[in-house]
Amino acid sequence: MSGSMEPMPTQFDPPSGTRDFLAAEFEARERAFAVIRSVFAQYGFEPLQTPAFERLDVLLGKYGEEGDKLIFKILRRGEHEASGEADLALRYDMTVPLARVAAAYGSQLPSPYKRYTIGLVWRADRPGRGRFREFTQCDLDTLGTTSVLADAEVICAVHDVLDRLGISGFRFLLNSRHVLAGLLEVFGIPAGLGAGVLITLDKLDKLAPAEVIAELAGRGLPEATAADLVGAMTAPDAVDRIRAALKSSEEGAAGLEEVDEVLALVGTHIPAGRVEFTPRMVRGLSYYTGPIWEVTAPGVGSSISSGGRYDHLIEQLGGPDTPGTGGSLGIERILLLLPEAGGGAKLRRLDVAVTIMGDEFAESAFGFATAARDAGLRAGVYLGGSGKLGRQLKWASDQGARWALIYGRNEQEGGTVTVRDMDSGEQTAVPAGGLRDYLAELAGGSAAEA
Amino acid sequence: MSGSMEPMPTQFDPPSGTRDFLAAEFEARERAFAVIRSVFAQYGFEPLQTPAFERLDVLLGKYGEEGDKLIFKILRRGEHEASGEADLALRYDMTVPLARVAAAYGSQLPSPYKRYTIGLVWRADRPGRGRFREFTQCDLDTLGTTSVLADAEVICAVHDVLDRLGISGFRFLLNSRHVLAGLLEVFGIPAGLGAGVLITLDKLDKLAPAEVIAELAGRGLPEATAADLVGAMTAPDAVDRIRAALKSSEEGAAGLEEVDEVLALVGTHIPAGRVEFTPRMVRGLSYYTGPIWEVTAPGVGSSISSGGRYDHLIEQLGGPDTPGTGGSLGIERILLLLPEAGGGAKLRRLDVAVTIMGDEFAESAFGFATAARDAGLRAGVYLGGSGKLGRQLKWASDQGARWALIYGRNEQEGGTVTVRDMDSGEQTAVPAGGLRDYLAELAGGSAAEA
Repeated sequence: MSGSMEPMPTQFDPPSGTRDFLAAEFEARERAFAVIRSVFAQYGFEPLQTPAFERLDVLLGKYGEEGDKLIFKILRRGEHEASGEADLALRYDMTVPLARVAAAYGSQLPSPYKRYTIGLVWRADRPGRGRFREFTQCDLDTLGTTSVLADAEVICAVHDVLDRLGISGFRFLLNSRHVLAGLLEVFGIPAGLGAGVLITLDKLDKLAPAEVIAELAGRGLPEATAADLVGAMTAPDAVDRIRAALKSSEEGAAGLEEVDEVLALVGTHIPAGRVEFTPRMVRGLSYYTGPIWEVTAPGVGSSISSGGRYDHLIEQLGGPDTPGTGGSLGIERILLLLPEAGGGAKLRRLDVAVTIMGDEFAESAFGFATAARDAGLRAGVYLGGSGKLGRQLKWASDQGARWALIYGRNEQEGGTVTVRDMDSGEQTAVPAGGLRDYLAELAGGSAAEA
Repeated sequence: MSGSMEPMPTQFDPPSGTRDFLAAEFEARERAFAVIRSVFAQYGFEPLQTPAFERLDVLLGKYGEEGDKLIFKILRRGEHEASGEADLALRYDMTVPLARVAAAYGSQLPSPYKRYTIGLVWRADRPGRGRFREFTQCDLDTLGTTSVLADAEVICAVHDVLDRLGISGFRFLLNSRHVLAGLLEVFGIPAGLGAGVLITLDKLDKLAPAEVIAELAGRGLPEATAADLVGAMTAPDAVDRIRAALKSSEEGAAGLEEVDEVLALVGTHIPAGRVEFTPRMVRGLSYYTGPIWEVTAPGVGSSISSGGRYDHLIEQLGGPDTPGTGGSLGIERILLLLPEAGGGAKLRRLDVAVTIMGDEFAESAFGFATAARDAGLRAGVYLGGSGKLGRQLKWASDQGARWALIYGRNEQEGGTVTVRDMDSGEQTAVPAGGLRDYLAELAGGSAAEA
């Protein structure tokens, strides 16, 4: 699968499609993950961590033929290595491991089981802009209940995450598989064409109506039916027309009721207009059985989050027969929308940088760093070879330090430490014995991030 | 490598040697990791995350012949899968990726580069009690300086982690490779026998002196020399005798000076007696070049942390020629020492459990859960099918909730919500409009963990 379009990797690059996260990027990601964990916990979802790899037979056949090809397989070991066979494979998503966990721990899990997970998955896809072979997935799911409250809860939790992360202008598109089934019935789509028709309708946000009609006709739908359907979906009053039309189908009416229940529940929390019934929103995956939703944001081509109800999926994946509903945050895409993720802000490695004016002061300097840490600050001593103050202050500045400590012959004689404000250059002589308290006061006056 | 000693895995177990972490265990681990991150940041170490896999050639040949056999290799993909060859391999430790990162990002990294990393590594070892195929490693290292301050900083940071985690009775054993080289010189050990002699001496904490002497003799050391050496190492005044003996070796004296410098530096911070010069402590790995140390704790057979200076290792691993010093926390072993890790404490999934006394109250209940979250509490609504209060209060109790909210016909008519204290059973009628503020006050009075 290693493509000829990839730039030639250098010897020390991480493997194709993977990334090293140095401090600034790592910390921006962790800040976002902390928001997610905090919101999900507020909704009573609990964390789950499964191994990076599963037995190969647990994963194979769960993602379709194309998916199987993208699974990273692990070679057998020892005497079996020469067989060239695999027995393990890297996690491809978070849902198959969830199904295995539901089967393995059954009654030990709370019922319903509300869990979230943030972790890496691996897919041997062709790497490209914003597409990786190792990337983070973030899922939350509720297993064991058919209540529409669970669907609404997932939507509200995802809403709060996006809101707290500061994503602007995001909107939920809401629909139901029952609405779609009702639509197919109302418009007289032959049962055999239903799945294909939905796949084509899903393109209405990208293709012109005429193109969609043509594609539907190509699938064998009478041209008039196709035009009717697309007309209803794209009319200015599409939602009203479809609401009216659905009443003549039992399943369609039930779907509409389901949608309205979700809207009423999330409406107790989410500002009006951020969640909208969107009949033409289909969601590609066939396993959904009830409410479905996705989140769009300005300037992002695809959805940044999506989910829905899947009452038979866990069983299909080898787990127990349990209903479920959940969602996934497109966290790699969302991270690109965060202002801070791009870097920019200067990295503060240290609050206090302690200079060392000669080997004979090393021990004192080391002790001053301890005093600064005791004051709740991040502190480090100069580890380089230069005895020059200018060089060491340059290091302090590179560390993003707010204060530098200077302690040489003069300070030793006076029993003081010089505290230098790295922004203003102002220097204060502080009695060495009172350094800790002095720094604690400075720390209290500014935002200590340690 | 899959051993016949393993218990027969059931179909839904995670792969042999790996673990699923459900909420309680996950959270206990995360709490410990948060302490580690916080302490390391206080010392100015920055985080690094590298991919789970590296190119196979980056890992092969770095861990010796035995190590190579334990590497999990990833099969090539697509048309190359049939070759049975591997091109990638799961991370085996954190040091080889560090060497690659030092080579890849060179001047973009701060100098010296102080980094820590907490992440999974994978080794195809025979799984056993406390020995896993997927486990967490936690390393901190300083590259780019030969200063003994860097060695002392690593030791202090590890000390603070163990101290903050509440590990009791731990002690650092400190030595230096130069001390060991000096010892070999002073006792007239032939150069060719040195490495083997050190490996045997390292067993003095497990074997009787006579056994160690016999093993040394077996390695070709004259019996009298072996007895001399072991006698000096095991005498009640061993440290004094060895200090005196080392003075006749230039390298030994330098090593002693190095040890004393580290002792003086860490002595500014670590209570006396917690770090002790231990001449017989060898550390198995041959790549150390200066100070070496390990941490013991009562009731733990092997060390819970170890490290030292390795001024040529990064270059040997394919990185730049840079000095380095660092340490590793045996985090899986340390986690076993934490009182909380064993579970025990009841899991608080929710602070506020919202009951639902019939479908007609679902929307109100959903809104009350929002009010509780706005008050900074973790809240969830009942998602089960029972309309019975007793059943729902049982659920609230299972969730570890401190308060349950009840809202039925009576409350609706009175415009109130009943707030039930789950410990005392006491119930308070709170005006529905004032619920958020009421709960915020309750939350302020207890420790909200959200």
